[in-house]
Amino acid sequence: MSKAPVLTPRADDFPRWYQDLVSKAELADNGPVRGTMVIRPYGYGLWERMQRELDDRIKDAGAANAYFPLLIPESYLAREAEHVEGFAPELAVVTHGGGSELEEPVVVRPTSETIVNASFAKWVQSYRELPLLINQWANVVRWELRPRVFLRTTEFLWQEGHTAHATYEEARDYAAHIHRNVYADFMERVLALDVLLGCKTPRERFAGAVNTLTLEGMTGDGKALQLGTSHELGQGFAKSFGIRYLSREGRREHVWQTSWGSTTRMLGALVMTHGDDAGLRVPPRLAPTQAVVVAVREDDAVLAKAREIGRRLTEAGVRARVDDRVDTPFGRRAVDWELKGVPVRIEIGPRDLESDTAMLVRRVPDDRAPVPIEALPATVPRVLTEDQALLLAQSRERRAERTAEVRTVAEAVEAARTGWARLPWDTLGPEGEARLAERGVSVRCLVAADGSVPERVDQPGNIAVVARAY
Amino acid sequence: MSKAPVLTPRADDFPRWYQDLVSKAELADNGPVRGTMVIRPYGYGLWERMQRELDDRIKDAGAANAYFPLLIPESYLAREAEHVEGFAPELAVVTHGGGSELEEPVVVRPTSETIVNASFAKWVQSYRELPLLINQWANVVRWELRPRVFLRTTEFLWQEGHTAHATYEEARDYAAHIHRNVYADFMERVLALDVLLGCKTPRERFAGAVNTLTLEGMTGDGKALQLGTSHELGQGFAKSFGIRYLSREGRREHVWQTSWGSTTRMLGALVMTHGDDAGLRVPPRLAPTQAVVVAVREDDAVLAKAREIGRRLTEAGVRARVDDRVDTPFGRRAVDWELKGVPVRIEIGPRDLESDTAMLVRRVPDDRAPVPIEALPATVPRVLTEDQALLLAQSRERRAERTAEVRTVAEAVEAARTGWARLPWDTLGPEGEARLAERGVSVRCLVAADGSVPERVDQPGNIAVVARAY
Repeated sequence: MSKAPVLTPRADDFPRWYQDLVSKAELADNGPVRGTMVIRPYGYGLWERMQRELDDRIKDAGAANAYFPLLIPESYLAREAEHVEGFAPELAVVTHGGGSELEEPVVVRPTSETIVNASFAKWVQSYRELPLLINQWANVVRWELRPRVFLRTTEFLWQEGHTAHATYEEARDYAAHIHRNVYADFMERVLALDVLLGCKTPRERFAGAVNTLTLEGMTGDGKALQLGTSHELGQGFAKSFGIRYLSREGRREHVWQTSWGSTTRMLGALVMTHGDDAGLRVPPRLAPTQAVVVAVREDDAVLAKAREIGRRLTEAGVRARVDDRVDTPFGRRAVDWELKGVPVRIEIGPRDLESDTAMLVRRVPDDRAPVPIEALPATVPRVLTEDQALLLAQSRERRAERTAEVRTVAEAVEAARTGWARLPWDTLGPEGEARLAERGVSVRCLVAADGSVPERVDQPGNIAVVARAY
Repeated sequence: MSKAPVLTPRADDFPRWYQDLVSKAELADNGPVRGTMVIRPYGYGLWERMQRELDDRIKDAGAANAYFPLLIPESYLAREAEHVEGFAPELAVVTHGGGSELEEPVVVRPTSETIVNASFAKWVQSYRELPLLINQWANVVRWELRPRVFLRTTEFLWQEGHTAHATYEEARDYAAHIHRNVYADFMERVLALDVLLGCKTPRERFAGAVNTLTLEGMTGDGKALQLGTSHELGQGFAKSFGIRYLSREGRREHVWQTSWGSTTRMLGALVMTHGDDAGLRVPPRLAPTQAVVVAVREDDAVLAKAREIGRRLTEAGVRARVDDRVDTPFGRRAVDWELKGVPVRIEIGPRDLESDTAMLVRRVPDDRAPVPIEALPATVPRVLTEDQALLLAQSRERRAERTAEVRTVAEAVEAARTGWARLPWDTLGPEGEARLAERGVSVRCLVAADGSVPERVDQPGNIAVVARAY
């Protein structure tokens, strides 16, 4: 008699497997208002670790955190024509406050370009204030008709950077710096996600940007997930909001701007990329708990030894915890740790005490072996480093295996059933892009012939990478 | 000819001095929607340090962070009768989303008891899940008719804790633990604020609580500021939301609950307590920048020495930065650092290089003296420790000096013109409280005769502490 699977197998129904995992690993629940989510402590613990790692990189890039209001006058959004057109269909509108109808309705921020730039117009006077580099950690609301937890939610959490520079070149370079040295570095090194860096086509650009840089990840079912974007905004907002500075030469000039964001969608990416049929697999550098020491059953000597191992692992720099919930069956706890994807599990029972060993169970390669207890403080950190690299390698391999070179729209649509397709942008073009879109396939990004991020959309030799996307 | 003061003097107009300081120290601006605020990078840097210190204490108290939706169905609030009555007048209501009118309006959270407890009802099954200890860092909206930046804003940032326990005693003790070991410890040790701990009268309690513990601080003009509250919620929400658990004995019982919060209002308290006519004075343990090394003028040797001092202070564990903005006049920079309240300023110019000394300027005791450069890495940390203690002592002294013992409502009103008054609660009572309220004076809290937090509002010997409040 075989056990019923804990989760719907990925091969049967990938989206249902995803929902099952998010729920059973206690990452998140749906909220009562359609499209909203409750991020549970385990899911939020992952988000906190993401925040810490990203925030460090953002500060290294010279940006300072600040906070702008949630509520924005409707008229602000209208000041930048493309911007309001892009966001109007998704707005949540507050019409009543403090018991009476408001004179001017206010919107719940869908993003903060307008309200941030109204402040920038006050703060920027001269070249001395430039570059002005601001980041905000906040919640935003975009009314979502086809919600999917973490990936598309009516409310989500994110960081949004907003900067102002004296020259076009400086703004362009800063957007690229964030793209490469903040986002890609974080996603590859910490999240162990293989990401493709490129730029968006005009059709897929952020509403109000002149160039959008993107990072695209491949999910376990070969689709694409946009994981972060960094925009060159040109001078559009600067002109709409009157952000001008006095240059060293005494001239009044409009600033050049960028904005960039990454969201709780990264939690969904983690699941969809690293998850397997037993649950999540959390990259060790991200994991709030890297190693859990599980006391197999109620026994004073076992519990004492489990706590000692926990202490010694902590001293060795491992984020360790002890599972001493011996009134819950061991099997159920083991399944739970697999679901949650804790990288290393150390199981210890009465027989292990006799041999002075413990069972070391690795989540990433799905491997178990007895290890002398004395050796654990040296072995566990080594294993964690290996498993971090293994997850990234697996993510890279998947994309290499599942990316096809094609020549036509029909081939691209066919390839997008199971993975990504690459074809020359000059043969595809905006018309081919529109035909793909009719079939549910989009151009995720353009990359240069040598694999780098193109300087311009129409740079000769650009390759369009196309896929179905979540 | 004397200089015009940078700020309106406190003695002339305390509220205007406060507004001036908040603006000129670049802590915050008003947002475009009435009552909202933009927290500028310097203000937000203080908030981030508060968050880190509070979050560590909250985690030490066993609570885990999570995130609940911003948008709450209107019907949820109505489930707890006292709660909805308390919050209805302050709600912001979203009536339109995604381009159409909503079937049921949703409110922007004014606090999260209702939506958190809807989740608790799902999560709690048995005694094994208890105590359930959750905290959330979030923004909330309460429509504010008389806004004052940081103190009363339509949107503010806060943390809100929500817990469920198996017994009344455990919930009561946890609320008291947060009150004393999280909030009071943080406010006294980090913010250097003298706080009075007591419980609220029924009139001043949180809507839905059976007991509210509070921390009250005294401002520079002798008024009171509520700085944090910790509520025993009894079983009211548990019954409204159906939060029941199976006890060890196999019975289905309602949980006992607490909630507790502290907000960006603490930034206002910092200004109103520690500020002087030259600006803010930031307690060293809180300060994002504890020491700024100011290069007096453009000079390669001076700049090199300033950077070396900055480096050596950093190595000595001081949060130091170098002010090398030599194209801004020295005097203007000095005024700016005073406004911002950086605890230690080290000024270095060409003449200091000759004597191998630098001018050490302390913000808290307003003291300046030359110090040998070699001695700085030892001197600065010692000075920071002293000044932290000094701020707390000054805050304590002020309350001692400005608190009067009185016997009648008339005397209390008179005393509240310049400070706080204490009188027996059994002679004041709810009727006396109502008469005080007509004169703009409120009972800030009750304390026991021995100065401790009373176990009950009607405990014999309780003292009412009354004041005007911001």
